[in-house]
Amino acid sequence: MLGRVNHVAIAVPDLTAATAAYRDMLGATVSAPQALPQHGVTVVFVELPNTKIELLEPLGAGSPIAAFLGKNPSGGMHHICYEVTDILAARDHLVQRGARVLGNGEPKIGAHGKPVLFLHPKDFFGTLVELEQV
Amino acid sequence: MLGRVNHVAIAVPDLTAATAAYRDMLGATVSAPQALPQHGVTVVFVELPNTKIELLEPLGAGSPIAAFLGKNPSGGMHHICYEVTDILAARDHLVQRGARVLGNGEPKIGAHGKPVLFLHPKDFFGTLVELEQV
Repeated sequence: MLGRVNHVAIAVPDLTAATAAYRDMLGATVSAPQALPQHGVTVVFVELPNTKIELLEPLGAGSPIAAFLGKNPSGGMHHICYEVTDILAARDHLVQRGARVLGNGEPKIGAHGKPVLFLHPKDFFGTLVELEQV
Repeated sequence: MLGRVNHVAIAVPDLTAATAAYRDMLGATVSAPQALPQHGVTVVFVELPNTKIELLEPLGAGSPIAAFLGKNPSGGMHHICYEVTDILAARDHLVQRGARVLGNGEPKIGAHGKPVLFLHPKDFFGTLVELEQV
């Protein structure tokens, strides 16, 4: 069911400084920052040969990463996103086996304009899992 | 400098249960568990089309993931490993720019039999970064 790792998301308190660290210290190719107010984050993409890292900074009130940064003020790995070909079939398979889908259980349109779901980290050993239909 | 994401490592308190969740709930291809006593972990590889996830359970006294699981008893994303072609050149580039290498600063042979280094998570916004020469 799981396809590619679409991205690993890292929440950071200072996107400018984090972008500089990935670009200048680690020598990675980074995008310009993109504000996604409807998702409550500003994102910089770190492009790697086989996947990407998304550096996320809170944007606006009620950002979905604000609580995480409250607990982890320095930042940290926030979630991992796997690609699936049929998100409703994936959801039904997971729910039948006891996994909990966050929110109302229906896919939403994610930051890449594609349907996404998030799975409860307690069902995956502390890791917040995003599924994205590609 | 950064190449492919070699793996994302997830520390878990119960490798059997975590393996079952990735295999049965997420429908991923998982390896048999491999005990790596010299690295203080037992590992299961979750094979994905573009990279892999490593599920790590502590093995023996002084496991390098024991403290992490002490703070995160349910488990969680522990580190991300990037490939580099020349680990000594990468280290020197990083150190010149102020990054701190864990341990004595010299590469060690990692769990895949290749030279690795770990970078201080405080220099990378809460993310423990491993570099592996491939």
